[in-house]
Amino acid sequence: MLGQLLKPEYEELIHARNWDALRDAFADLEPPDVAELLETVSPQDSAVVFRLLPRDQAADTFEHLPLDRQTRLIEVMAEGQLGSLLEEMAPDDRTRLLEELPWRVTQRLLNTLSPEERRIAGALLGYPERSAGRYMTPEYVSFREDMTVAEALAHVRRHGKDRETLNVVYVVDRAGCPVLAVRLATLVLADPQARVMDLDHGMLVSIPATAPREDVVAAFEKYDREVLPVTDSRGALVGIITVDDVLDVQAEEATEDIHKLGGMEALEEPYLTADILTMVRKRGTWLALLLVGEMLTATAMAFFEHDIARAVVLTLFIPMIISSGGNSGSQATSLIIRALAVREVELPDWWRVCRREALSGLILGAFLGLIGFVRIAFWPTAAAVYGPHYRQVALVVALSLVGVVMFGTLAGSMLPFLLRRLKLDPATASAPFVATLVDVTGLLIYFTLASVILKGTLL
Amino acid sequence: MLGQLLKPEYEELIHARNWDALRDAFADLEPPDVAELLETVSPQDSAVVFRLLPRDQAADTFEHLPLDRQTRLIEVMAEGQLGSLLEEMAPDDRTRLLEELPWRVTQRLLNTLSPEERRIAGALLGYPERSAGRYMTPEYVSFREDMTVAEALAHVRRHGKDRETLNVVYVVDRAGCPVLAVRLATLVLADPQARVMDLDHGMLVSIPATAPREDVVAAFEKYDREVLPVTDSRGALVGIITVDDVLDVQAEEATEDIHKLGGMEALEEPYLTADILTMVRKRGTWLALLLVGEMLTATAMAFFEHDIARAVVLTLFIPMIISSGGNSGSQATSLIIRALAVREVELPDWWRVCRREALSGLILGAFLGLIGFVRIAFWPTAAAVYGPHYRQVALVVALSLVGVVMFGTLAGSMLPFLLRRLKLDPATASAPFVATLVDVTGLLIYFTLASVILKGTLL
Repeated sequence: MLGQLLKPEYEELIHARNWDALRDAFADLEPPDVAELLETVSPQDSAVVFRLLPRDQAADTFEHLPLDRQTRLIEVMAEGQLGSLLEEMAPDDRTRLLEELPWRVTQRLLNTLSPEERRIAGALLGYPERSAGRYMTPEYVSFREDMTVAEALAHVRRHGKDRETLNVVYVVDRAGCPVLAVRLATLVLADPQARVMDLDHGMLVSIPATAPREDVVAAFEKYDREVLPVTDSRGALVGIITVDDVLDVQAEEATEDIHKLGGMEALEEPYLTADILTMVRKRGTWLALLLVGEMLTATAMAFFEHDIARAVVLTLFIPMIISSGGNSGSQATSLIIRALAVREVELPDWWRVCRREALSGLILGAFLGLIGFVRIAFWPTAAAVYGPHYRQVALVVALSLVGVVMFGTLAGSMLPFLLRRLKLDPATASAPFVATLVDVTGLLIYFTLASVILKGTLL
Repeated sequence: MLGQLLKPEYEELIHARNWDALRDAFADLEPPDVAELLETVSPQDSAVVFRLLPRDQAADTFEHLPLDRQTRLIEVMAEGQLGSLLEEMAPDDRTRLLEELPWRVTQRLLNTLSPEERRIAGALLGYPERSAGRYMTPEYVSFREDMTVAEALAHVRRHGKDRETLNVVYVVDRAGCPVLAVRLATLVLADPQARVMDLDHGMLVSIPATAPREDVVAAFEKYDREVLPVTDSRGALVGIITVDDVLDVQAEEATEDIHKLGGMEALEEPYLTADILTMVRKRGTWLALLLVGEMLTATAMAFFEHDIARAVVLTLFIPMIISSGGNSGSQATSLIIRALAVREVELPDWWRVCRREALSGLILGAFLGLIGFVRIAFWPTAAAVYGPHYRQVALVVALSLVGVVMFGTLAGSMLPFLLRRLKLDPATASAPFVATLVDVTGLLIYFTLASVILKGTLL
């Protein structure tokens, strides 16, 4: 955002290898801006530039780099530099780095940490992947119940250095369980002689460390907090999650859902830096599966080959009909998958959704059917292009549109529920997946209607 | 999250119309939980229940209700109650409510506000829709440059009541422009006699009030702040945006993109409460447009009708080929639209993306083509099902798959850039839209290849 204007100048300094001037110029930049700069230069250059950064700015900058850049920097870093970098990193960001690296590298890195930091990293890595525990930091401030405001503020002053946030501190009981979330602002505004317990704090909301990260996002969205405490299985306070990480998780979740909806395995790296073969594999697997699914359309059509040979005109409308089914399915599945993701809709709502979609599908199908009928039956040269029985053909197309749109809408809306019920990811019901399902069914609907309506005329 | 367990009990109290017990029970609930409860009961009941809430809890609860519930409550509320509710609401949430209501209702509501609150609401409504100004609140604390830490803390104590947040306060210059963002935690930890200007604050990042909301999300994601200052065209501080609103905007933006990618106009309300006719209209418009687009496939096929009549076997593979193009286009457009949305990719990257996608498309197309060839040429009963020239047919299908997958990949990845270039929303390049485009082209590719390869044998 800022510093954007100066970018070319920095790049020039790097290009000119003017390290002294660059070191001075970095003083004006924020870590996210330095990270942005590092991403634009070659990995070799970025390693040199990275070494110019003062120690604390280096750790902050490192946290803002994408994972692939982080691992490349690690490869070229000396053990000593690496150790001090990891020590300076925030525990939650460090956990994310360690869990993405191969296990042997992780082990080596853990060994460079001080015993205390190693203990923290080990504990955070102990929680399941994508659980709240992986996103928390143990750098919070807490104190026992019986303090005055003045004592609490003195405690914050004593223990508050280098904490992830001091905006909220926690009162814990004898068992270490959080009792109150106390805003620093509340302490500052309160009478110093008042007891902390007597102030107005609002309800304590906490997150179990094993909760999936979607639950973390949902809790932050619902309660509008900027930090929430994390508890272990005994209910004891073990860390805090700050909203900046939640913002990242929410974006990642949306990216994953969009990639899956598009009909591929979610890409975990940024598009431009993702390995092209990994990307091709994640797309190719699904394309191949969908192709195999689509082969059923050839089988279905082979079944009607004699009808097709007698009434070639029918083939003209095949793409139009099956794609309309696919489109309505794509709409329905996108709507429902997103509604499930943001918890506007839950599993027990399936029947309500089913009724809504049945009605929507009927209206939409009737609407498209009408357009299709008019387009064929009232085309100026209809008889010449579509043959003498063009009105019956138009009727077949119109009714087929009603059928496929209804089927597409219902399949697209119900499949996500079915997948959720089977404890699979609803987003697997991607638009292409639903479309493939609808294509096969759409052909069956079309040719069945044709053989009934055109019997005795065309067929 | 919490209170979930008790929900049936609350609902029972409402059902039994036991208002006294309910009023007492509300004392244990947070506003988001009360809002959740209100959403599950009928609008009539919710109005009654809402009246039981103490005044400040009422405003907080109201802010957590979806818009349609808010407007329904407003309809049944007495003028006096409505006025006090609006006065208590946070200015940013109130802006969002006012801007969604019909203009006459907004005017009436504005008139119920006190002159001071009316001025605030008017100012916030003056900024363009979806701009940073609409999400800010003027409830921040700021002071002039020349204070000590002790003086600054005293200032915060004096002016800090009822502010949206005190976690960060601002130092402004004579012109009212922000100079420093000062964390309350920094003040608490610092020597009371130190000058605020001498402390370590990090760089000031601010957002212009007219910036689109996507920029707001990007700034919060990049700088990991929980609040950012908003400035007017002269650079003066006019408000702050807090991260809880950013979390909501980020989710809304993702929802919109997913709906558009699914091939419909974005639904602005939650799925289950959205008006069914509005929803059908937002879906039907796009379905109809896509249907009209797909009619081109009928035109294209009519052009090849004689070929089809001579080689009916060709029709069997039409759905398979065009859907493979659509699927690869859907993948590419989902990837690129998301990458553009989270700014991993920008407009000038189009050529890099184009090369990447051309290569990906070639690999994917070759892979699918191979599968298609094997499936047809090595099918046990190939000659019986696909006729004596089944090997040539297999070749036509395989090469067509290469062609449509490459075309789908390129069209799906380049269309979002084209739309962005034309200052349109890239997400309009929805999966169904790309698929429709690819269907028409796919048919042309298929029949052209067929007429070349099968010339003299089948055709």
